[in-house]
Amino acid sequence: MSRTIAILTGGGDCPGLNAVIRGVVRSAILDHNWRVIGIEDGFDGLVGEPRWRELTLASVRGILPRGGTILGTSNRGNPFAYPVENNGTTRMVDVSAEVVENFQRLGADALVAVGGDGTLKIALTLQEKGIPMVGVPKTIDNDLRGTDVTFGYNTAVGIVTEALDRLHTTAESHHRVMVTEVMGRDAGWIALESGIAGSADVILIPEIPFDLNTVCDAIHQRKALGRKFSIVVVSEGAFPAAGRKVVQLTASENRGVERLGGVGAFVAEEISGRMQVETRVVVLGHVQRGGTPSPFDRILGSRFGIKAVELIAQGRYGRMVSLQGRHVYDVDIADAVDSLNLVEPDGDLVRSAEALGITFGRPTLP
Amino acid sequence: MSRTIAILTGGGDCPGLNAVIRGVVRSAILDHNWRVIGIEDGFDGLVGEPRWRELTLASVRGILPRGGTILGTSNRGNPFAYPVENNGTTRMVDVSAEVVENFQRLGADALVAVGGDGTLKIALTLQEKGIPMVGVPKTIDNDLRGTDVTFGYNTAVGIVTEALDRLHTTAESHHRVMVTEVMGRDAGWIALESGIAGSADVILIPEIPFDLNTVCDAIHQRKALGRKFSIVVVSEGAFPAAGRKVVQLTASENRGVERLGGVGAFVAEEISGRMQVETRVVVLGHVQRGGTPSPFDRILGSRFGIKAVELIAQGRYGRMVSLQGRHVYDVDIADAVDSLNLVEPDGDLVRSAEALGITFGRPTLP
Amino acid sequence: MSRTIAILTGGGDCPGLNAVIRGVVRSAILDHNWRVIGIEDGFDGLVGEPRWRELTLASVRGILPRGGTILGTSNRGNPFAYPVENNGTTRMVDVSAEVVENFQRLGADALVAVGGDGTLKIALTLQEKGIPMVGVPKTIDNDLRGTDVTFGYNTAVGIVTEALDRLHTTAESHHRVMVTEVMGRDAGWIALESGIAGSADVILIPEIPFDLNTVCDAIHQRKALGRKFSIVVVSEGAFPAAGRKVVQLTASENRGVERLGGVGAFVAEEISGRMQVETRVVVLGHVQRGGTPSPFDRILGSRFGIKAVELIAQGRYGRMVSLQGRHVYDVDIADAVDSLNLVEPDGDLVRSAEALGITFGRPTLP
Amino acid sequence: MSRTIAILTGGGDCPGLNAVIRGVVRSAILDHNWRVIGIEDGFDGLVGEPRWRELTLASVRGILPRGGTILGTSNRGNPFAYPVENNGTTRMVDVSAEVVENFQRLGADALVAVGGDGTLKIALTLQEKGIPMVGVPKTIDNDLRGTDVTFGYNTAVGIVTEALDRLHTTAESHHRVMVTEVMGRDAGWIALESGIAGSADVILIPEIPFDLNTVCDAIHQRKALGRKFSIVVVSEGAFPAAGRKVVQLTASENRGVERLGGVGAFVAEEISGRMQVETRVVVLGHVQRGGTPSPFDRILGSRFGIKAVELIAQGRYGRMVSLQGRHVYDVDIADAVDSLNLVEPDGDLVRSAEALGITFGRPTLP
Repeated sequence: MSRTIAILTGGGDCPGLNAVIRGVVRSAILDHNWRVIGIEDGFDGLVGEPRWRELTLASVRGILPRGGTILGTSNRGNPFAYPVENNGTTRMVDVSAEVVENFQRLGADALVAVGGDGTLKIALTLQEKGIPMVGVPKTIDNDLRGTDVTFGYNTAVGIVTEALDRLHTTAESHHRVMVTEVMGRDAGWIALESGIAGSADVILIPEIPFDLNTVCDAIHQRKALGRKFSIVVVSEGAFPAAGRKVVQLTASENRGVERLGGVGAFVAEEISGRMQVETRVVVLGHVQRGGTPSPFDRILGSRFGIKAVELIAQGRYGRMVSLQGRHVYDVDIADAVDSLNLVEPDGDLVRSAEALGITFGRPTLP
Repeated sequence: MSRTIAILTGGGDCPGLNAVIRGVVRSAILDHNWRVIGIEDGFDGLVGEPRWRELTLASVRGILPRGGTILGTSNRGNPFAYPVENNGTTRMVDVSAEVVENFQRLGADALVAVGGDGTLKIALTLQEKGIPMVGVPKTIDNDLRGTDVTFGYNTAVGIVTEALDRLHTTAESHHRVMVTEVMGRDAGWIALESGIAGSADVILIPEIPFDLNTVCDAIHQRKALGRKFSIVVVSEGAFPAAGRKVVQLTASENRGVERLGGVGAFVAEEISGRMQVETRVVVLGHVQRGGTPSPFDRILGSRFGIKAVELIAQGRYGRMVSLQGRHVYDVDIADAVDSLNLVEPDGDLVRSAEALGITFGRPTLP
Repeated sequence: MSRTIAILTGGGDCPGLNAVIRGVVRSAILDHNWRVIGIEDGFDGLVGEPRWRELTLASVRGILPRGGTILGTSNRGNPFAYPVENNGTTRMVDVSAEVVENFQRLGADALVAVGGDGTLKIALTLQEKGIPMVGVPKTIDNDLRGTDVTFGYNTAVGIVTEALDRLHTTAESHHRVMVTEVMGRDAGWIALESGIAGSADVILIPEIPFDLNTVCDAIHQRKALGRKFSIVVVSEGAFPAAGRKVVQLTASENRGVERLGGVGAFVAEEISGRMQVETRVVVLGHVQRGGTPSPFDRILGSRFGIKAVELIAQGRYGRMVSLQGRHVYDVDIADAVDSLNLVEPDGDLVRSAEALGITFGRPTLP
Repeated sequence: MSRTIAILTGGGDCPGLNAVIRGVVRSAILDHNWRVIGIEDGFDGLVGEPRWRELTLASVRGILPRGGTILGTSNRGNPFAYPVENNGTTRMVDVSAEVVENFQRLGADALVAVGGDGTLKIALTLQEKGIPMVGVPKTIDNDLRGTDVTFGYNTAVGIVTEALDRLHTTAESHHRVMVTEVMGRDAGWIALESGIAGSADVILIPEIPFDLNTVCDAIHQRKALGRKFSIVVVSEGAFPAAGRKVVQLTASENRGVERLGGVGAFVAEEISGRMQVETRVVVLGHVQRGGTPSPFDRILGSRFGIKAVELIAQGRYGRMVSLQGRHVYDVDIADAVDSLNLVEPDGDLVRSAEALGITFGRPTLP
């Protein structure tokens, strides 16, 4: 049966997006002889005059090793609350009917929505309004439940680890405490894995609220053993363990994160203030989510794309592709977006890190 | 209980060996306050005058990002058939009793043997002779059953993929067929994963004997579509499908592999001879197994080392650490070494590659 | 004639320091059979109880590919104004006599001082007090006159270019203006070369005070041509061209740099405020000066070390090694430290960048 | 004055070719408002029906970090001896008149020929026949006189150095002699610079015919000092010093290079045969000339492209762009192609390598 399928990419950048697009296009054309349409700039491309282009084998040549997405993405694009300017004021408008209509006018039979939490929730609601959807999960932080791991994350861990390798030699030569703030708003995966791989001494993640006393103790103990430097890796979403029962935080600690604009800077300043030690902070930022994907992410993205096409061929809409162990299966989009994939504070990986001597700044009980 | 444990590394080089050593040393010392002894050059270090050194926290500083093994390794070292020279002739001698005696004189309670098939089989037999053993699997080819994946393999795939990225631009500019021979004597994992990640057009692996007619057809079809170059990745253990029922091989095909010294050169020459096309062959060789390990391999090696110490603490000898899904478990060494972890010719990953348009040169049925 | 020579490394980290140390040690020992002493932590190692170690061939094995300095460095270490704490207050004390005495007690004939502006000026004054000096220039910013280029700089340009490659794909996918702040307090070399290599659209350097109107115009023109993203590279020492004659700056512009703590953040905020465009800022920081040196820096560092030994052999003290074209010569330290190596605003390289369409934000004349 | 200029790329692949094309296109369009035509597949694109395409700003977007050449190249393309098949036999035909005619029909005013020795000689002769030429030098081996250095070479040195870093850890762990054969048919630059940067123990280059006795002595001396491994880097064009006066070569040495197909394999086999040591050989091959160019090569390629346009603007035909020190000048093509840029056997760089303890296998005089 000949079909036309559409694909769009939404949300933040993630290495492997082009692998997904290529996977969809190649398997749709080579295996099924379908037509593929690429919607530009996420759901935005279906608002107003539709922006789309034909995706042929030639369109996806050479894109596997490239970061970004050839289709563009959008941070605006929630069709259920779409910012419309009028006389200088911005109102949020529901343009979902327009999106559905535009999609139908394209003559497409199904839409592959590649995106995170937000994009997938929108996809689900749009499906109820008449767009047959297949979801492909995307999150640089690896915080999406419903799949063991997402593409892009492996690349990010690689970039951070390389940065930690670089910072190591400087920290050691200068007897400094180097604080590196990495991505991870809710989940500390990037900090955890790159911290282990990059020989960090301290890893601070959102799942384990930290006590700076424990952190400073660890740095102090290293110093006592002749190691005059330390490497601290902090998730951007890490925060101090406040509350009376565990440890009494000073007022400055509670305010600190906001005052300095980032938890990395806060931690660096506190360590520097409490100990007689020079600290430096590096915020890796967007460097973590761009550029050529690692082999793992190229393969995973490709497989996700192929699986999405397979789901459409089987008419299994509302499903999301998912890596489980070494196999790609599928799950309900609804199940995938209702909670987060967090680091277990007492799980395998954290315990391994602790066995290596890494501290997570757990508050010491009185 | 205070203990002394020993560790040795055997067989070919593999990125992540130092991570294992560091994991063993740090968790043995920090968690258990044990003493750790490093045996030099694999089992060789227990033949004759033992060669070993104390491994302290200082001994393993800074080794996580480094390739190779600080303990050295040996290709000779089978104590049950050890080459001894005498008057210019070499005899194979059983020196296992000496090895056991040397081990016992070191006062060690257990031995962590890090190695492949060969090393682990030796370990098993030495255990029967009185050395309590824990195994850590090591194979660059990822062909060891009993664990989902081994350290070093991920690094190798990364190196090959980067090489394929480089060869791609040259192949395209020159309209050439580039044949790259990669590691994989019995198992085609490296060729398979790096081939998918590196946008190969043809992947030839030992698990799927190939027909050069199919390969040439695929290259020809690309040419017909205006793609004047092709990338071929070949496992060193790949071989042409001989036998009358499937496809008739010419005599030169059967002899070819030996004549030119490598299957890569053979494939390149055959393609060049059969089609009007320039081919080039690259044999990546030992570059694939050295140098800084990928983050994945650093973490896996570390976890394997930690688990090995845990097994000793539990007195569970004869076991081998093993990655299954995202967790590190343990299996019987005996079970791990009795068969190989091969690519399934009709498994998930091969089918994904085929969905992308990659050919494995499967013989076409008449 | 048998001699003992000493070496120390001062100031900020720089890839290639270990290459210099290795070059000095290997050529001193292999060519001259001299003894080499490594002073720890810059001139600090000669204050109080001297901290030093013997440097043998074994000491420098394997250090060529490693960042940092095996000798450590110090940011404190000015012997002419050395911070001494007494009853909680810190006074600056001249400890140079102690440094000279300590040096002489080591029995060393000459000292190789590897460092920047500051370290070399100290070396010059200490030479007057009796320590025969040879200088090796070191500056990550490449702002030292007296040599065409210094080691470490090439590595830094490589790191920044790789980061720009990564940011490019994200900027393009998201239609964003990405502002990257890089090292370069007085000289814009890193921004200039990595900006050209990394396809930047705007490069802002200290040598060419910028006008944000020009910058915004350039971004606007790109947008008009359908390029919805731009890459801006800013030296940390870049600043807006103030003053009435050229262009009228608003008060916020003049205050801006301080308010936000960095020129990168300032530029990003201004662009975002003036245009309807999303901006992101990345401050690469210390990642630029650590880690494995590029081949160029390994070779240059090695050659500098060898040349330093040659200068000592010739008794040519007070000289600094220097790369001129493809040869290593020597110059007076005094000449090298009296002014900076700045980018010429109308030189070859800036003009090349402009020919490629890159803007430096030069104020437009009225 | 409005003009149309053409550009083509000839000969082997070289990272930075796209930078040249982009430099030509951007400066021709942005600075001069000229039209640019890209000839496909070198001079081949002017034989028969011309193959060319319009090069706009959009054509060169995103190509700076990419290896290869978007215009393609050809190994055939000598218009003065062009292979023409007729009834199964191939004759060499002079098609230069056709090339000139095709060029003129394109309405182009000048041609930028990017290529090596061969391409530039052809360009010179075609200029006499009526095509105004500007040359851009290209050689991965860096063996072209008339410019200090060519683009691509720096990238190649980086790739080889990284490979040597990887081989180092394996060689050390296994106590092996690792022989790496690298590019360099007439000139040993790649072996020399990557050998120094990659801590080689032996470097063999065409400019210094080697004596295997000296090589084996060096490996032996290392062994005596406890260094049981050695790294040997060999240019593909290196050869043993034959002749009675210097050192007596056995017959097998003289035949060896041919017998085994490469000097690397020959050297590895000889060392293995003469000493009791395991050797391995790696031939890096085409990996050295593909993939993303280093920052240096991107900048140099860009500047060469800009300069080529400038030369056309000045009507200075028959000239070749050239890097001298830090500036881009121009020289007569004729002067550039009449001899090679070779390593000086007693120059600065070789002497530096020797000061570090590297041997070139110079024959020892009796």
